[in-house]
Parts: sequence; structure tokens; C-alpha cells
Amino acid sequence: MSDYLAEHLAAIQQAAARIAPYLRRTPVLPTDLDASLFLKPECLQVTGSFKPRGAFNAMIGILERQPHVRGVVAVSSGNHAQGVALAARTLGVTATIVMPADANPAKLDATRALGAEVVNDGVTVMNREDIARQLCAERSLTLLHPFDDWDVIHGQGTATLELLTDRPDIRTIIVPIGGGGLISGTALAAKAHDPSIRVIGVEPETAGDAQASLRTKQRQFLPAPPVTMADGVMTLSIGVRNFEVMVERGLVDDIVTVSEQEIERATLLSWEGLKLALEPSGALSLAAYLQGNAPAAGPTALIFSGGNASRPLMARILSREA
Amino acid sequence: MSDYLAEHLAAIQQAAARIAPYLRRTPVLPTDLDASLFLKPECLQVTGSFKPRGAFNAMIGILERQPHVRGVVAVSSGNHAQGVALAARTLGVTATIVMPADANPAKLDATRALGAEVVNDGVTVMNREDIARQLCAERSLTLLHPFDDWDVIHGQGTATLELLTDRPDIRTIIVPIGGGGLISGTALAAKAHDPSIRVIGVEPETAGDAQASLRTKQRQFLPAPPVTMADGVMTLSIGVRNFEVMVERGLVDDIVTVSEQEIERATLLSWEGLKLALEPSGALSLAAYLQGNAPAAGPTALIFSGGNASRPLMARILSREA
Repeated sequence: MSDYLAEHLAAIQQAAARIAPYLRRTPVLPTDLDASLFLKPECLQVTGSFKPRGAFNAMIGILERQPHVRGVVAVSSGNHAQGVALAARTLGVTATIVMPADANPAKLDATRALGAEVVNDGVTVMNREDIARQLCAERSLTLLHPFDDWDVIHGQGTATLELLTDRPDIRTIIVPIGGGGLISGTALAAKAHDPSIRVIGVEPETAGDAQASLRTKQRQFLPAPPVTMADGVMTLSIGVRNFEVMVERGLVDDIVTVSEQEIERATLLSWEGLKLALEPSGALSLAAYLQGNAPAAGPTALIFSGGNASRPLMARILSREA
Repeated sequence: MSDYLAEHLAAIQQAAARIAPYLRRTPVLPTDLDASLFLKPECLQVTGSFKPRGAFNAMIGILERQPHVRGVVAVSSGNHAQGVALAARTLGVTATIVMPADANPAKLDATRALGAEVVNDGVTVMNREDIARQLCAERSLTLLHPFDDWDVIHGQGTATLELLTDRPDIRTIIVPIGGGGLISGTALAAKAHDPSIRVIGVEPETAGDAQASLRTKQRQFLPAPPVTMADGVMTLSIGVRNFEVMVERGLVDDIVTVSEQEIERATLLSWEGLKLALEPSGALSLAAYLQGNAPAAGPTALIFSGGNASRPLMARILSREA
């Protein structure tokens, strides 16, 4: 194993030990679809997504470096928000979350219920990072980035550490991409376990910046927020550290895109066929698997990133297909 | 332990070994609702319900007694149907399923997809047992009863064997009741583990025959099929063997009923809060837990019996509450 992988694996293992008191070890589930398919259902994680893995690890890191931190600020469409809000409340730090004004109301309510202050007046996917930086400066707060942060990446990698402990024979892992936090952690953990495991990312067709970045070997930026029902992956580009892991180090084998119709079909199948209530972003890996553009060699794991679906959207999907 | 419990425990352990090659060991899941609450999500079992546990055990029993059986007949609103259809296909037996003409179409389609012949022309909850007995006589087939059968009861008990292996500290188990197959197996396994574990059954208010049977110490019969969205528990009475376990042997501590509104709310909460796509029958234990009429002492387990929800019903529930 390269020094690079060895160091990151050690950091992921350390993250697993640090966050263990607060989080769940989600199970690995078989399905009725295909005997060689396995699910890592992070919808069953605390707060309904994988995000608290990274949020807790980063918050513990911040407290080690700044024991008297005044508070943290996070930018999020909703799942990172809930992860940070829970980590902050649990570890006694105040949290301010910058969320787009049109965010999924279920995610907004859940974030407030966890005790975080939500700033969303006039916030869009375009201006949210600037607003967060301004808040940090004005109030002497510390930014907890949703993906471009090594502690976050290592925290997200703990899901794959668990997956490969439970099923060391997995040969392909398919995982959604927003800013690249989950897939970076996944790739580091997977390639440290066995460099021949294929790691495949999935984006909505309308948000193909990561695929373009992989193909051009340069970070690509969307000019405007993508139009997609997958509200958890609306970032405009992957982060610098994520680009390093995914592209420069070559740890992601391929990135595929899926249409809105394919995302909708996969979300429906997760509910009806797998009995897991996924949100559309959470069903991206299933969409890619069903589409077949992510050729899965050997036992294949789909990471289901979250289940915080908007109720009106789910009602629409279920009615439309009835 | 009494000889009665010891014998039944041995039979449940034998069932677990017999069915292991064909079924899943479902996980025990914690929740964000309450730290002392645990879920046994049989919606994640093969075919989406607990039913194949009993169906496989009974089918293996039939094949031991009648190696050249001509085929089996089952009466079912849909989940037992799928369990029997899968067991039959897997073990090379033909299956004929008598299903009410107005059964949940998702369950009907799934049963046919598993290769069973479905008889549903003119079938109602009232006449289905007679039609099944007639089919058995005419075609020399063997009836595989959905609940009034020791092999079925012992098969269903394997879920609780797993639950108490994973969490031996469980003090209360809440479980849905239709004909009493699941709760009989649950009670036998639980009381053999520790007689002080409380076993609490749940029925829809409109289908309170088991509660009435427990209170009057006599099997009570509904005069007509109950009107309830919980289509998995529409039986008119519990079985003779089930009455023996539940009432005569006193192994069920209490039976509570829940309203349609409470069932709907629990189904919605399972999707939104627990990220498990339950059918209304599967959410009965959650409805009772939320209602608080089933006072849960100590760590409490809810058995979620199934997830084969009808899509139009799910769409209606999600829209109504939006």
C-alpha cells in the first residue's frame, strides 16, 4: 500500500474510533433483485444520512484544535446541516447553518429541531458559500465544510470501512457524488483494502461536473445550480481535496450520470422493491446500477446516502407511476 | 422452563436451522425516536415480509412427510402467498394460492411472478377457506395453513430467536396479529428465553377478535371481513393452535387495538422517520407504541411484519398528510 493510502486509512480508522460513541454501524443488506448485490443503507444512520459521520469527526477535530471555539457555520441543502446540528448539540458547540431559501422543508425543520440556527433569507446555491464566510468573519465562527475537509472525508470513509469488514469480497462500490466527500472517503477506504476494487461515482445528468472533471483532469464548475430532484447533490463543483483523491490520485475508476427519469424509477424501486425509503439523491447508485452504465464486476455494493425525502415529492412520484 | 416451552423452543431452533439456507437474518435496528427502542424489520426479509419463515418450515415439513406431494394450496391476502410461492418454487413443489378478488394488486403480481397459480375469481375473505379445502379435495393437494399450523408457528418464531440473540436485554416485544401465527411463534420464543419478557399483540380496532378472545378466554369470530387499511391482518379469528399458545397457555400478556388514523400515522412515520417502507399491517406495532396503550417497560422491540404496501394507498397517505 502506498504511504498516501496508508496515512489516509489510518485517519479513517481513527475517525471510526472517534465517532463510534455517537453513530450507528449500519448493516449490509442483501436484496431480492440480485444475489450479488449488497446495500449499505445510510438512510438508517442517525439523522437519516451518512453526513454525521463526517460532521462528528470534523467537530471533534475542531474541538481538539480550538477547545474554546465560539461556534461553527455550515453550508448545506439539508443532510450535512442535520449532521452538523446533531454533532454541535451533542458536543456542546453552537451551530449556524446557511441553507438555500428553497431547501427541502423536511430537512429545514429537522435541522431546526436539532437546535441549530438556520440562516436562509435570500440564500441560494450560488451565494451560500460567500454568506457562510461572511458569517464566520463577523461572528468569529469556524467553517465546517461539507466535503472539502480531510476530517469530513475520513469520517465519510468509515461507512466503507464497515462495508468491507462485513463483506470483504465486494469488488465494485457505486456511490453518489455531490461535492465528493462521500466518494473520496469511499475510494480511500476501498483502495486501501484492495486497489482492484472498482469505485464508481454517480451524478444526475444535469449536474455532471465531477464526470467532466474526471475526463478533463481539471476541476469543472457548473455555471448555475442544476435542476434535479436529487436535492442532496446540487453543489457546483467538487472540492480541491476531493479532486486530489478522485482525479489526481486516480482513486475513482469511473463516473456515470443518470437521467431524472432514472432517478425517479430508482427511488420508486427502493421503496417498493427494497422497502427502504430513500430520497432521490440516496437512490443515485441504484439508478446507475439499474441503467447498467456502471458495469458491476463481482459482488457489488450500492451506498444509499440518505432517506430524507420531501413528502410532496414522494407523493408525486408514487402517484405519477401508479 | 416448562416441558411445553422447551419442546416448542427446540422446534423453533430446528426451524431456524432448516430455513437458514433460504432466508435472511434480518438486522435489529435502533432508531432516532427513542434510545430504548429496537426494530426487527421483516420488511427486509425475502419477499418483503416474515411469512417465508413459516412457509419454508412448513413446506420442508410437508416434503418430509409426503416426499411425493402433488402440490400445496394456500389461502392468503398476499404475504403468505408470496412466502408459499417462493418456498414452493425453491423446493420444487407446485403452489396454488387462493386470494381475495380485491387483494392488494402489488401482492397479487408478486405472487404470480414467483410462479404460483392464483385462484381469485369470486374469492372473498369469507369463502376463501372453503374454496381452498375444495381445491385440496378435487386435486389431491395439501393445505398449507397461514397460521394454524405448528410448523408455520415455529418458523415465525425464528425472527424472535434472532432478535433475542442480538439483543438479549429486550423486555417488551410488540407484534401485529392477524390469525396469530407470528405472535404465537414470538411468544413461544420469548417466554422460553425469559418468561418475564412482555409480549403484546396489536390489532386494528375494526378487527379486535384476538383481543376479545383473550378477554373472554374463548375464540371470538368477526361476523364479516374487517374494514381496515391493514390488509395483511383481515382474518376473521385466530387459529386453534394460536388460541392455545396465546390464551390457554397465557403466553401473550396483552392485546391492544389501534385506530385507522393511528395506523396511517405510524405508516407515515415509518417512511419519514425510520426510512423503512412499511405496509400498514407492518406498522401496527409502531402504531401501538406511539399510542402508548402498550406500556413498554425497558428495552422494547417492535416487529415490523412487512413492507408490501399498495402504491396508490402510499400515494394517498403521503398526499393526505402533506
